[in-house]
Amino acid sequence: MKHSVFENLGFARTEPHRIRRQGFPEAIYCPGKTDAQILQIFASLLKGPGPVMATRVRSTTARALCVQFPEAKYHESARLVVAKPLRRVRKRKSVCVLTAGTADYPMAEEAAITAEVLGRSVTRIYDVGVAGIHRLLSYERVFSKASSVIVCAGMEGALASVVGGLVSCPVIAVPTSIGYGSNMKGVAALLTMMNSCAANVSVVNIDNGFGAGVIASLISK
Amino acid sequence: MKHSVFENLGFARTEPHRIRRQGFPEAIYCPGKTDAQILQIFASLLKGPGPVMATRVRSTTARALCVQFPEAKYHESARLVVAKPLRRVRKRKSVCVLTAGTADYPMAEEAAITAEVLGRSVTRIYDVGVAGIHRLLSYERVFSKASSVIVCAGMEGALASVVGGLVSCPVIAVPTSIGYGSNMKGVAALLTMMNSCAANVSVVNIDNGFGAGVIASLISK
Amino acid sequence: MKHSVFENLGFARTEPHRIRRQGFPEAIYCPGKTDAQILQIFASLLKGPGPVMATRVRSTTARALCVQFPEAKYHESARLVVAKPLRRVRKRKSVCVLTAGTADYPMAEEAAITAEVLGRSVTRIYDVGVAGIHRLLSYERVFSKASSVIVCAGMEGALASVVGGLVSCPVIAVPTSIGYGSNMKGVAALLTMMNSCAANVSVVNIDNGFGAGVIASLISK
Amino acid sequence: MKHSVFENLGFARTEPHRIRRQGFPEAIYCPGKTDAQILQIFASLLKGPGPVMATRVRSTTARALCVQFPEAKYHESARLVVAKPLRRVRKRKSVCVLTAGTADYPMAEEAAITAEVLGRSVTRIYDVGVAGIHRLLSYERVFSKASSVIVCAGMEGALASVVGGLVSCPVIAVPTSIGYGSNMKGVAALLTMMNSCAANVSVVNIDNGFGAGVIASLISK
Amino acid sequence: MKHSVFENLGFARTEPHRIRRQGFPEAIYCPGKTDAQILQIFASLLKGPGPVMATRVRSTTARALCVQFPEAKYHESARLVVAKPLRRVRKRKSVCVLTAGTADYPMAEEAAITAEVLGRSVTRIYDVGVAGIHRLLSYERVFSKASSVIVCAGMEGALASVVGGLVSCPVIAVPTSIGYGSNMKGVAALLTMMNSCAANVSVVNIDNGFGAGVIASLISK
Amino acid sequence: MKHSVFENLGFARTEPHRIRRQGFPEAIYCPGKTDAQILQIFASLLKGPGPVMATRVRSTTARALCVQFPEAKYHESARLVVAKPLRRVRKRKSVCVLTAGTADYPMAEEAAITAEVLGRSVTRIYDVGVAGIHRLLSYERVFSKASSVIVCAGMEGALASVVGGLVSCPVIAVPTSIGYGSNMKGVAALLTMMNSCAANVSVVNIDNGFGAGVIASLISK
Amino acid sequence: MKHSVFENLGFARTEPHRIRRQGFPEAIYCPGKTDAQILQIFASLLKGPGPVMATRVRSTTARALCVQFPEAKYHESARLVVAKPLRRVRKRKSVCVLTAGTADYPMAEEAAITAEVLGRSVTRIYDVGVAGIHRLLSYERVFSKASSVIVCAGMEGALASVVGGLVSCPVIAVPTSIGYGSNMKGVAALLTMMNSCAANVSVVNIDNGFGAGVIASLISK
Amino acid sequence: MKHSVFENLGFARTEPHRIRRQGFPEAIYCPGKTDAQILQIFASLLKGPGPVMATRVRSTTARALCVQFPEAKYHESARLVVAKPLRRVRKRKSVCVLTAGTADYPMAEEAAITAEVLGRSVTRIYDVGVAGIHRLLSYERVFSKASSVIVCAGMEGALASVVGGLVSCPVIAVPTSIGYGSNMKGVAALLTMMNSCAANVSVVNIDNGFGAGVIASLISK
Repeated sequence: MKHSVFENLGFARTEPHRIRRQGFPEAIYCPGKTDAQILQIFASLLKGPGPVMATRVRSTTARALCVQFPEAKYHESARLVVAKPLRRVRKRKSVCVLTAGTADYPMAEEAAITAEVLGRSVTRIYDVGVAGIHRLLSYERVFSKASSVIVCAGMEGALASVVGGLVSCPVIAVPTSIGYGSNMKGVAALLTMMNSCAANVSVVNIDNGFGAGVIASLISK
Repeated sequence: MKHSVFENLGFARTEPHRIRRQGFPEAIYCPGKTDAQILQIFASLLKGPGPVMATRVRSTTARALCVQFPEAKYHESARLVVAKPLRRVRKRKSVCVLTAGTADYPMAEEAAITAEVLGRSVTRIYDVGVAGIHRLLSYERVFSKASSVIVCAGMEGALASVVGGLVSCPVIAVPTSIGYGSNMKGVAALLTMMNSCAANVSVVNIDNGFGAGVIASLISK
Repeated sequence: MKHSVFENLGFARTEPHRIRRQGFPEAIYCPGKTDAQILQIFASLLKGPGPVMATRVRSTTARALCVQFPEAKYHESARLVVAKPLRRVRKRKSVCVLTAGTADYPMAEEAAITAEVLGRSVTRIYDVGVAGIHRLLSYERVFSKASSVIVCAGMEGALASVVGGLVSCPVIAVPTSIGYGSNMKGVAALLTMMNSCAANVSVVNIDNGFGAGVIASLISK
Repeated sequence: MKHSVFENLGFARTEPHRIRRQGFPEAIYCPGKTDAQILQIFASLLKGPGPVMATRVRSTTARALCVQFPEAKYHESARLVVAKPLRRVRKRKSVCVLTAGTADYPMAEEAAITAEVLGRSVTRIYDVGVAGIHRLLSYERVFSKASSVIVCAGMEGALASVVGGLVSCPVIAVPTSIGYGSNMKGVAALLTMMNSCAANVSVVNIDNGFGAGVIASLISK
Repeated sequence: MKHSVFENLGFARTEPHRIRRQGFPEAIYCPGKTDAQILQIFASLLKGPGPVMATRVRSTTARALCVQFPEAKYHESARLVVAKPLRRVRKRKSVCVLTAGTADYPMAEEAAITAEVLGRSVTRIYDVGVAGIHRLLSYERVFSKASSVIVCAGMEGALASVVGGLVSCPVIAVPTSIGYGSNMKGVAALLTMMNSCAANVSVVNIDNGFGAGVIASLISK
Repeated sequence: MKHSVFENLGFARTEPHRIRRQGFPEAIYCPGKTDAQILQIFASLLKGPGPVMATRVRSTTARALCVQFPEAKYHESARLVVAKPLRRVRKRKSVCVLTAGTADYPMAEEAAITAEVLGRSVTRIYDVGVAGIHRLLSYERVFSKASSVIVCAGMEGALASVVGGLVSCPVIAVPTSIGYGSNMKGVAALLTMMNSCAANVSVVNIDNGFGAGVIASLISK
Repeated sequence: MKHSVFENLGFARTEPHRIRRQGFPEAIYCPGKTDAQILQIFASLLKGPGPVMATRVRSTTARALCVQFPEAKYHESARLVVAKPLRRVRKRKSVCVLTAGTADYPMAEEAAITAEVLGRSVTRIYDVGVAGIHRLLSYERVFSKASSVIVCAGMEGALASVVGGLVSCPVIAVPTSIGYGSNMKGVAALLTMMNSCAANVSVVNIDNGFGAGVIASLISK
Repeated sequence: MKHSVFENLGFARTEPHRIRRQGFPEAIYCPGKTDAQILQIFASLLKGPGPVMATRVRSTTARALCVQFPEAKYHESARLVVAKPLRRVRKRKSVCVLTAGTADYPMAEEAAITAEVLGRSVTRIYDVGVAGIHRLLSYERVFSKASSVIVCAGMEGALASVVGGLVSCPVIAVPTSIGYGSNMKGVAALLTMMNSCAANVSVVNIDNGFGAGVIASLISK
């Protein structure tokens, strides 16, 4: 591999062909970057084979991107802007995305759309938290067709362990920043998931739906 | 029990009859939900026997709920919207709600109104923190008629232990986010209450007046 | 109430009649106390109506207590020494004690025996953690006869929330120090339980089986 | 699925056939359990199809298990006792296990042997921490044949991110408790891995080699 | 002031006359020092006017000090070795030392003896924690004759706030490491005291009886 | 003492004569209270002998107080509103207030004015942090005339220890929330001060100038 | 050295000639200071030989400074205002400033401009984080001409360790507050850098580009 | 550079010539390694030009090393074993190593001997903590001849800031684990140093004398 694959923008060094090297593209994490920087990086990454993704996009930035790049599409609930998504690949199993509560929706959508952009089929099952466990149990048959399950949960994050005990595939736990008081913006959920008694659970950072989507895509490869 | 008792709204799965199953209703925790979502969930829960409760309601949302649902009532200080409260049940003992200071008022009201909505009688004794211990001691006779005592306290949260040493019923401690500096938004009070030398004290999350009200109601059952 | 009810031993001031005042006795928390001190306090408390309880008793201390006081009995697994327990009171409902795993046994026994010493009937259901959720669900009928449920769980402590969503009585969660790494000796489980999405869950300190037993007894009163 | 698949030992409820249900067996986490309990659970699990695994085994317990159960084998460096391992399955890709330093060896072996017990081929590359990055880079070709990479690293745990940027498969990061001072027994490494800028990294608990081995096995399925 | 007042022992630079400069002597904090070092520093400080104090002394070290220096006296419960204490000074008011429980005894004795060594009169009131508040209230008259009150408390440390609300002098709070679970070796008590709603409470480090004794002595000057 | 000394406002129970009982008045901590509540409490406390103090006053509230109560005076930099301050008492020694930097000014003024309101003389020495230690040393003579020294410092808070080593009176350390990054809003300074190697330093909560002023006043009594 | 070198502004004591004494000037850290205070301090420091630097300057303050002092220049991206910078000194080696990502730009510029203001040559290499390690490795030759390397990195901060293993000069690590979730505003990056397995890495506070620039300048002296 | 410079021992990959590449050797951090592993790595590193260093050596391991390798020398107080140290290089300036207290001695010696092994002259000034600031100030002339100053301090760690304000060279702060209570094994000192108001201070991990010695050596190059 050569370093010539990087494009030097001065403030940034992009890698438009990362998907060839790693199976997933370099994404633009927008917080802390100016709109001008984001537009320039987006343009640079468009030189690659795609897909191009920007995450945690402010709505004003999203509009600027969509104006500048007609191929870009804004997924508002997931705070994503996407261009050149991959075609859906036919597989026997799909990626399953769960939420514990309604407020976990944006992170779950970030995960689900990321997996779809990378060509995977996604099954969404939302608001099946453990306070009403029977909601969850009615989906046991669906789980048997999952290549992996992404669990987005805030508050105490107990859903990941319960799902971990029901399925026979890897569980990717996404602690969310939903909660209050001793939740400490997701840290409580993160610790719950980290200490899961189910051996098939691994964890990504708080609210990191993008990472979960990438990992689920690589697993189903 | 069947999962058919859940209503699937896509982004949410509600359980309007939870009170039959558990003795307390599913409540709508509003932060992180859009007004449209809250209205839809409220409507769904109204199909049950009631009561219906929304907690931590933004004032604009509260107004929207009251306009849409004439049976809904907004308790501003407690940030609650309630519909179809239960009738007051006659009992020999009442739920006693205490605050250490004036700023703990909203959490105490959330607890008190929740218990009332669930049909309990409530006695309020506010601003009896330990810096003037004699304020508290003058209420010893009242405590003997309590089925449980809810103690809302921020700062150092010492009131829970002192009350725990005075009463012969369970004490439900609600650490509040009132304080500054090393209080860390209620964590100091939570730790104080957690480590209480009084054996009859248990603790709920910071500012969780709703949970305290539910537990007090179940105890007095 | 008068302060003359306290006996002054110099290094300690005991209250042998606390059970009359509060419905539960003063217990001797042994760590940090010498054997001589524990024996003296035990003797002092025996002047009251009983029961007398020492918690977290070292085995050598336990033997010394049993030699000195023939009425004392050592419950090794629960690390308790008890004298003059109350008679079992007949009730329609019992206290239900659950553990998530085998290692939570000592804390569960501390809770269960405390409740029994205070005259309550106890139902034990051990090792029903969420990694095999169907173990738990098979006990739903038992839960309907519980006045309260004590849940002892370490690791991620998710069991408390699941049980909270199944029962119609208060749940007293006891985080245990069982776990490793980011469990931080029970802090992860404590945070999980504190942030429970089930409104009927309150929490006591890590490994505090005694407190849970006391509260369960007061609830069933 | 039925709850009859559980065996009730009183202090424990085992599930000997979990591997049929979930693709990996129930393992015995030994800390906090007595030797007698471990032996009883091991015997119960042996009634299933296997494999049977005990983790974090004290050397005295290991000897007792090997005496009692001739089919049991003690892997000392990994602190594992194993019976009835699965046959190696032929696959194009193998599980790759890396360590940053020599002291991460036990956790890496726990992960590697777990994957082997579950029938996977494992490639071990040890002591390739980032302080000498060229050690790592010389293995790029090996990584291309990995179904997943397990990275065991203590201290600052930077290896996970660097590997994450080199491979096209999921990376399972195992923070280890190796380090001192502000490492806080692995918490620093855990946070590093949690915040990885590489999107294909997910994390398990500190020193949790077993979990990493299970997940790697499920991915390669 | 001149630096010549320091004696250079190579590994240490002692100041035998610090009491003249600051009103309290340099004390030898023993943990982390070898017996040989402690003996040498003790000898050096004995060249000053006294008193000489060693804190947190291991019993073997204490014996070595008493053998070497006949004027040295070992206070075992307080883990102090003292030589050349000051004469008791007659004052209208005394230093009052309180403990919440029996296990706080060593820290309280360290504080009390330090104040006595510096010539103050001390009133000890032990085991008056808030779980039996009436024990404490019976001493209100004693408090009115205190120049300052030292409160030693572990667990939740609530005693400091209650005392702060009863007295008209400064309260020096000593959080102790007595407790378990979320007490985190005294951190919970420290936070409680730090956040006291009583304005006359200041705090020293966990178990720092020596510092509390010094400050009480300076206040009564 | 009688509880009749408290005035019951429903949401609050004030104690206008606390200064008689404790030597310092009840102050109104404004955050979390509405303007209406603050005005009512202020009016109630004015029935006592004074002084009356409100702390952390929002500027709008301050104006409302000054309009309603002509005797009230707003100290803007210290965020205090004061009525009926005590007369200055002639003493040989004064309270000395130090800051480490310019940004610690508001907390220092809160402390200084509180002591003045309680009748003490105050010497202010501002911006003498340890990065230029010679600034501080030039004031050694002033320190010898201090009854106590209040040290307000943020960042690393090292000033408290250095001053503690220079003076022969108690040092009251006020960690301030000035700083960034790992300062964690004053927690770093708090820990520094808590662990001071100078035995005469005690600590109050972050930014708690009021408490420091009260304690200094009680010491100089 | 004399204390007369300080100028007393009442609220501040400036040291205009600090650069003579220490090799770097006193800088004005702007947060927590009013514009009036900043202008007065700037004027005072201009009496020295320079350079004069204000850090973390609000844009309105920057404009006020530039209007008042024509020699002042605003570096917007670095949030610095500078007057009277030193001349560039010719050296064989330069200070090398690296960033892991685009969002670390402001802190890197603060470090780079600080070093330039102190007369050093600076080489900037931005956006070379470890997710694309080959970007970094292509600069190995540049590193051999560095007197020191400043590494600005947020997220997991792994870049510092990798660079530490490549260079033969000191590495000054600047954790940045860039990141989310368990990054906790830079604390994760700080811990990573603190625990670096590369022995030549030392760390400054989160976002402290100024300190890194000063240290790099002193090293190249 | 080539990866052939690494020797593969299976459990470890050593780099005997690292000093040529980086200016300091690979050191053996002993905790977590067996004696057999340490001996093998030591032998491997001896093939390089030296020096060879093992840090945090257990005394039994040290003896084994000295028996096996006659050129090895054990520095007991510093817990170091060293072979083939570099010759002292003549320089105008020396590395200055300070401790705040006697208990910081081992870390200071680790730093000092590391610098000496790398050929630097070292000046030791021990036990000059801030509680007696005049001890420190008497060394101002010595500081002017320092190429860098290493400050080892536990407790509150204030010495680093004070020294930072006195010298014109970089200060490398080594927080030590000396202290108790809220010191949290060095974390308090680490935070103090991290937040230093002196701009020339950077920090290494708790007790990391080796790293400080390496950095000081590189600075004086």
